[in-house]
Amino acid sequence: MSWIHEWPARTLMTCRHSSPWRGAPISTMLFLAVEFQLFREIAVNKTDLSNVYRGYIACLNKQDWPNLGQFVHDDVHYNGQRIGLSGYREMLVRDFHEIPDLYFHIQLLVADSSCVASRLDFNCTPKGTFLGLPVNGKKVSFAENVFYQFRGDKIEQVWSVIDKAAIEAQL
Amino acid sequence: MSWIHEWPARTLMTCRHSSPWRGAPISTMLFLAVEFQLFREIAVNKTDLSNVYRGYIACLNKQDWPNLGQFVHDDVHYNGQRIGLSGYREMLVRDFHEIPDLYFHIQLLVADSSCVASRLDFNCTPKGTFLGLPVNGKKVSFAENVFYQFRGDKIEQVWSVIDKAAIEAQL
Repeated sequence: MSWIHEWPARTLMTCRHSSPWRGAPISTMLFLAVEFQLFREIAVNKTDLSNVYRGYIACLNKQDWPNLGQFVHDDVHYNGQRIGLSGYREMLVRDFHEIPDLYFHIQLLVADSSCVASRLDFNCTPKGTFLGLPVNGKKVSFAENVFYQFRGDKIEQVWSVIDKAAIEAQL
Repeated sequence: MSWIHEWPARTLMTCRHSSPWRGAPISTMLFLAVEFQLFREIAVNKTDLSNVYRGYIACLNKQDWPNLGQFVHDDVHYNGQRIGLSGYREMLVRDFHEIPDLYFHIQLLVADSSCVASRLDFNCTPKGTFLGLPVNGKKVSFAENVFYQFRGDKIEQVWSVIDKAAIEAQL
């Protein structure tokens, strides 16, 4: 019955659960644990940033301004200019005032661990002028291609281009 | 000298190179090999698409039209319209004719396994009109936010928005 005495030491030194781990030393298991954690973090980071971004878009569509700060950094920059969270909120409130049926729809989304790129498409009715164009209540369709640099899980930089030429072509 | 006889079997059954592999069974090593290959393929796929895209931009900047087909699919679509490789090449040749100092510079690049998003910045001198604007030899700076959908390692769909408002503001 020598295995009874050996068992605690063998459990400590090797993994006996099932193949392929059977007989692997604890050093190998520790290495694997670290390696899997690295792999998991890469996968989770990527998934999380897309999910965070979808949460941000849902927040905009609900006009849930009290929660905007969950997604946007206090020090946010828009097209190279620091506007801060309050300036960002004011810009969005103004957009919804000028375009009452504004709705953000993600057409394309590419994300890595610190940056999101999104193509948003819009089908909406600006009340008056929009981007200097006399839309005046006509329904227009256009896209916005936009990049977001994150600090942690908050948007810190936005570089946006709206397809003004597409709107002009519809007027 | 029993280790001499045991040695071939031990080599087959365990990895003896160095810690943490010392004593690991061959089944663990095979599992690790598969797992590392998976990890490597994910990393390589991502790296390769960025590298392919950088190769494409280098091809444009060299005006290396005979090699454009290495990067662009025969059936390429631009902003939803099928223009094909020949139409794509003609568009680029025309761009370089109308903007002799055209140079593509990548400011931001986000890639996944099938899509690239890039913010390109330009600092150039269109000879005449550009996007319907009378630039007429004035140096202008502007960005293009553009998405590329790949089929394999070739661009199949392009969705581009050029910052026309930024150019207007400089005229």
